[in-house]
Amino acid sequence: MRIDQRALDQLREVKITRNYTRYAEGSVLVEFGHTKVLCTASIENSVPRFLKGQGQGWVTAEYGMLPRSTHTRSDREAARGKQSGRTQEIQRLIGRSLRAMVDLKKLGENTITIDCDVIQADGGTRTASITGAAVALIDAMNVLLEKKKIKHDPLKGLVAAVSVGIFKDEALLDLCYEEDSNCQTDLNVVMTQAGEFIEVQGTAEEKPFTRTQCNEMLELAEKGIQELIKKQQDALGW
Amino acid sequence: MRIDQRALDQLREVKITRNYTRYAEGSVLVEFGHTKVLCTASIENSVPRFLKGQGQGWVTAEYGMLPRSTHTRSDREAARGKQSGRTQEIQRLIGRSLRAMVDLKKLGENTITIDCDVIQADGGTRTASITGAAVALIDAMNVLLEKKKIKHDPLKGLVAAVSVGIFKDEALLDLCYEEDSNCQTDLNVVMTQAGEFIEVQGTAEEKPFTRTQCNEMLELAEKGIQELIKKQQDALGW
Amino acid sequence: MRIDQRALDQLREVKITRNYTRYAEGSVLVEFGHTKVLCTASIENSVPRFLKGQGQGWVTAEYGMLPRSTHTRSDREAARGKQSGRTQEIQRLIGRSLRAMVDLKKLGENTITIDCDVIQADGGTRTASITGAAVALIDAMNVLLEKKKIKHDPLKGLVAAVSVGIFKDEALLDLCYEEDSNCQTDLNVVMTQAGEFIEVQGTAEEKPFTRTQCNEMLELAEKGIQELIKKQQDALGW
Amino acid sequence: MRIDQRALDQLREVKITRNYTRYAEGSVLVEFGHTKVLCTASIENSVPRFLKGQGQGWVTAEYGMLPRSTHTRSDREAARGKQSGRTQEIQRLIGRSLRAMVDLKKLGENTITIDCDVIQADGGTRTASITGAAVALIDAMNVLLEKKKIKHDPLKGLVAAVSVGIFKDEALLDLCYEEDSNCQTDLNVVMTQAGEFIEVQGTAEEKPFTRTQCNEMLELAEKGIQELIKKQQDALGW
Amino acid sequence: MRIDQRALDQLREVKITRNYTRYAEGSVLVEFGHTKVLCTASIENSVPRFLKGQGQGWVTAEYGMLPRSTHTRSDREAARGKQSGRTQEIQRLIGRSLRAMVDLKKLGENTITIDCDVIQADGGTRTASITGAAVALIDAMNVLLEKKKIKHDPLKGLVAAVSVGIFKDEALLDLCYEEDSNCQTDLNVVMTQAGEFIEVQGTAEEKPFTRTQCNEMLELAEKGIQELIKKQQDALGW
Amino acid sequence: MRIDQRALDQLREVKITRNYTRYAEGSVLVEFGHTKVLCTASIENSVPRFLKGQGQGWVTAEYGMLPRSTHTRSDREAARGKQSGRTQEIQRLIGRSLRAMVDLKKLGENTITIDCDVIQADGGTRTASITGAAVALIDAMNVLLEKKKIKHDPLKGLVAAVSVGIFKDEALLDLCYEEDSNCQTDLNVVMTQAGEFIEVQGTAEEKPFTRTQCNEMLELAEKGIQELIKKQQDALGW
Repeated sequence: MRIDQRALDQLREVKITRNYTRYAEGSVLVEFGHTKVLCTASIENSVPRFLKGQGQGWVTAEYGMLPRSTHTRSDREAARGKQSGRTQEIQRLIGRSLRAMVDLKKLGENTITIDCDVIQADGGTRTASITGAAVALIDAMNVLLEKKKIKHDPLKGLVAAVSVGIFKDEALLDLCYEEDSNCQTDLNVVMTQAGEFIEVQGTAEEKPFTRTQCNEMLELAEKGIQELIKKQQDALGW
Repeated sequence: MRIDQRALDQLREVKITRNYTRYAEGSVLVEFGHTKVLCTASIENSVPRFLKGQGQGWVTAEYGMLPRSTHTRSDREAARGKQSGRTQEIQRLIGRSLRAMVDLKKLGENTITIDCDVIQADGGTRTASITGAAVALIDAMNVLLEKKKIKHDPLKGLVAAVSVGIFKDEALLDLCYEEDSNCQTDLNVVMTQAGEFIEVQGTAEEKPFTRTQCNEMLELAEKGIQELIKKQQDALGW
Repeated sequence: MRIDQRALDQLREVKITRNYTRYAEGSVLVEFGHTKVLCTASIENSVPRFLKGQGQGWVTAEYGMLPRSTHTRSDREAARGKQSGRTQEIQRLIGRSLRAMVDLKKLGENTITIDCDVIQADGGTRTASITGAAVALIDAMNVLLEKKKIKHDPLKGLVAAVSVGIFKDEALLDLCYEEDSNCQTDLNVVMTQAGEFIEVQGTAEEKPFTRTQCNEMLELAEKGIQELIKKQQDALGW
Repeated sequence: MRIDQRALDQLREVKITRNYTRYAEGSVLVEFGHTKVLCTASIENSVPRFLKGQGQGWVTAEYGMLPRSTHTRSDREAARGKQSGRTQEIQRLIGRSLRAMVDLKKLGENTITIDCDVIQADGGTRTASITGAAVALIDAMNVLLEKKKIKHDPLKGLVAAVSVGIFKDEALLDLCYEEDSNCQTDLNVVMTQAGEFIEVQGTAEEKPFTRTQCNEMLELAEKGIQELIKKQQDALGW
Repeated sequence: MRIDQRALDQLREVKITRNYTRYAEGSVLVEFGHTKVLCTASIENSVPRFLKGQGQGWVTAEYGMLPRSTHTRSDREAARGKQSGRTQEIQRLIGRSLRAMVDLKKLGENTITIDCDVIQADGGTRTASITGAAVALIDAMNVLLEKKKIKHDPLKGLVAAVSVGIFKDEALLDLCYEEDSNCQTDLNVVMTQAGEFIEVQGTAEEKPFTRTQCNEMLELAEKGIQELIKKQQDALGW
Repeated sequence: MRIDQRALDQLREVKITRNYTRYAEGSVLVEFGHTKVLCTASIENSVPRFLKGQGQGWVTAEYGMLPRSTHTRSDREAARGKQSGRTQEIQRLIGRSLRAMVDLKKLGENTITIDCDVIQADGGTRTASITGAAVALIDAMNVLLEKKKIKHDPLKGLVAAVSVGIFKDEALLDLCYEEDSNCQTDLNVVMTQAGEFIEVQGTAEEKPFTRTQCNEMLELAEKGIQELIKKQQDALGW
């Protein structure tokens, strides 16, 4: 039995609220149980220097945790003067995952920046971020289409993410903080709507994992991500 | 007539929601119209080095805007590697204002850090922050009292803040962003429950203001702050 | 009786020495008693990026204290790698105050940077800086006029600043360090030659101040600033 | 046929040279074809603050590329004033991988820092780093044993790493730079001597990968890592 | 004939004014012609960590130029967030030179920090700094003696510095800015009262210099430094 | 007798290995005994902003020590976020010395950056760096000639460097670390093939040096540098 009464292969309650704030072209509050992340998508009519003049766009992400989103307060990264290695790792992961959803040529010379700010953290903030950001990104691309800034929809398909892990030698889906900090192995998986992999990042925290455990975790992740994509589709009214 | 149909001396709709997030000892979402700030209070059982061994506590504040809380996206301060002068100015103002509410001796050797994070910005973020942070601070001090970490309530009284300004030669209460960016003069006022001043910060943006205008603005501020203190009291169930 | 035998409404001895150093377009040493600030004005024939192509100029200020200008040595900001919040607050205040003196359109696409470096600090360094910087700025604008770089004098009028405070419940003009660090309330006021306000920044240090005390302080400030403007005029030979 | 005539499941020529420099407690030059990384292990008789007094040790890693280890020169991170996100990601990966080899309790209150500095980069620098660093770490732990600083060997077993990828829909072992920058998917795998997984990090660069491809890549990695562990054992004279 | 009518072996007018500011334990304004440097010495009753518990003191120096001390304004190092390589080189040179004057054992566990801030720069700021700082340091050590914080005078003897150079193939003493920026070779020399060398730093700017030229420059420097030491002695009333 | 059995005027064994790594236009491993420095030269077809449009090139250098190149590990400068004063001093010295070898006009609008990375440090890393970098620079200039990017050889002649010092009152050539850290005086000398001086940097570490000692050291340096230039010529096959 899990700490929060879930079955081993059960997601936490997932909510995806669009238009959560007023100004961003896409603004989504995503909740995986107590984990809450605000994902906003901002359009800028230009591209980073390394892409200038190539007739394509860019999608990038930034990530941050409010200092007291967590059980004990962490330092504010802006005050400390730099982003931690963990923060950079996560925002690079989110950016790569989102770019896999988009035909950058069709995006034209536009940049969409996704900000994922964690309001409350109970494990799985990076996977919730990707899942919510995918929806915010679609909203922003639709703004470009509606305003006739681009002609063709750059969307290649939905992407969602979930964490899986081995806890007391059993595979669990969608770890909460308590499970995450005590599990043997933690695997974050990003997949497309079509059931293919974008990212697989597994780390043995306490003891190494076997090929069999790897397979069990990947299967759980596939199941969870199909459910998450259904939630995204519902939120989008598809 | 004001841009949003308010009377000259009318506040925007003000909401103060306690226990907005789960982990902080005080957690308040404060809304002044479309301006929304999350104020969390975190207790740490120690004091900064300059206060060590003096048998007193400390209250400090940090402030940040989510990159897309505003009409157009601003750089993330954590990514840029430093807090702007404006941010530092505001967090110093919030800290000073909150310390005026507290008997630091009675706080014992505890530090309470208030994080004010702007979720959505439509003018008046610093005054909303102070007004909401005051409530979060009280919640955190009550946690210390309930857990018997301190014996006597350190609270000296409520503090609230509002902006006033001169727009087309008339004094206005509680400026929204549109008004704020077009006004001649902008005055932020912090006052106590007892009707005395903690901070008065007036800046002529476009043309200097007269002594008469200064008086008009201070009177509007007094009126507005009394209403805000009533809102704080309602939220606290006093 | 004041610590230095002054009357409550009496300024310290004020000296304004022009052409204090050789290379700057304006160079003023301003002394308020033992407080000594070197204010230099430097002309650059360009404007910051955000003003490019708008046919107007810019005036900005930087502020610093020599490490041992104070009673005990403070860290050198250049060595520590960043300017303190206090420094940034002060230089933003000086910049705004000086821009109120100038018609930026008439300044053409020129930037004037005022450096206020505190040689010796005995309270009131920000108000002395503004008072001295105003003169250095005029000298620099006259260089532009003489060299025919601009056609019309951009000067709108003089600006000066003074601190006032409440000490043992009495209002005092132009606080020295000893008074400043023990006063209940500290108010910095910037005014124009015409007797109007540019900035009013009041902070209750120890206990809140009443509306009556606010009025007393503003009146003292008005008196003091008129005297300072007279000193500026004398220094300029007007 | 591969760019460098290797079979799909063939490693590049691997060399592991111990005692490459004089002063470090462990010093290994590891070569995967043209990729050359110098891995040094340094012992310090203390632990980071978060471990003080817990009677255990710590193993950590830092990573850097010489500016011209690559085909075109990159900026020196020390001159730019910060480590890139990529660098931080890699050094965190190396550190986690090496800690999986060590019983930190048996290490006592000692810290071993592994520096992985890339002399020449032709793809796979992170996997070469882990493979070489494992040997340098063992040499350093043996110094502690020989000097009787610790009583029991903290080594739990060898760890090695390799990259695999999908290039033109075929799975390849140990990608060189040319392959790495053109492959569809890149997977870095870290395994123990016992054939279990420590880290699996797969990224779809160009198009998503299927579960079948994932399996193919994991099998190639298992094969390659067994060969690398054999090379480590040879180098160690086991 | 030199630009300012001096003979080849003639110093500029040198003035050393003690007690230039009020608070520092030593405060000297040193002038070499138009070059003006304020040198203050501050005592702290502790030593840097690397000297703790060794029963000796420390002398260190910091150097800065006011942004408009020069012909055109330079960036403020505090605003840019770091000290230039040139600044660090100079402050390391000043620190080493001053430590050569002092028996650090006799200084006890005290640190004396010398701040050299350039008010006006016309070449030779580092040599003027050393020459003035030596006097400020002596004044500070005398404060320690008078207050009975130390028993024995730590002074080993005076130290002074001068620049020499080759300009149009002739050796010149004490270069002004104009000469300095056009000379072939620039040599800074620091010597003791006893006529021995502390530092010799020669740089061929435009063309290499011969052994003969090196000798000519060293002789000029010896002459100049003897005159500077005489100036220091006069200032000290010896 | 010296610590390593050398005569007072004897260099350590010097080796200069060209083409040490594959990608750089010049790549030299220079060894002075146990001191080993990798010097790579990288060509970029542009110049720094301050030289744009002047029809000339630029030569610059960067320097770094691998963290465990030394007897005990030093912090990684990239991790600490800044280069030390010592590092900056050395890279400025290397850059100036190399520019003395080159006719920058003939180099065209190209920049050659020399990276000197210390693999193993046993004293004299800056002089070894200059000696090796000179060869790497020539190799890079020859690449420009061969590829017909420039028409005329920019080389003015070879440059090499050596350290000399006074140890127990005797002058020594080419100090190893042990000698360097115990000597009274340390002098680094850079000379041209023609026997003229580029840089002379002498520092009294423990006690001042006399004019006679200065002369002895300069003579030893001249002898050593002639031998080093011979080694460079051999390496270049001249």
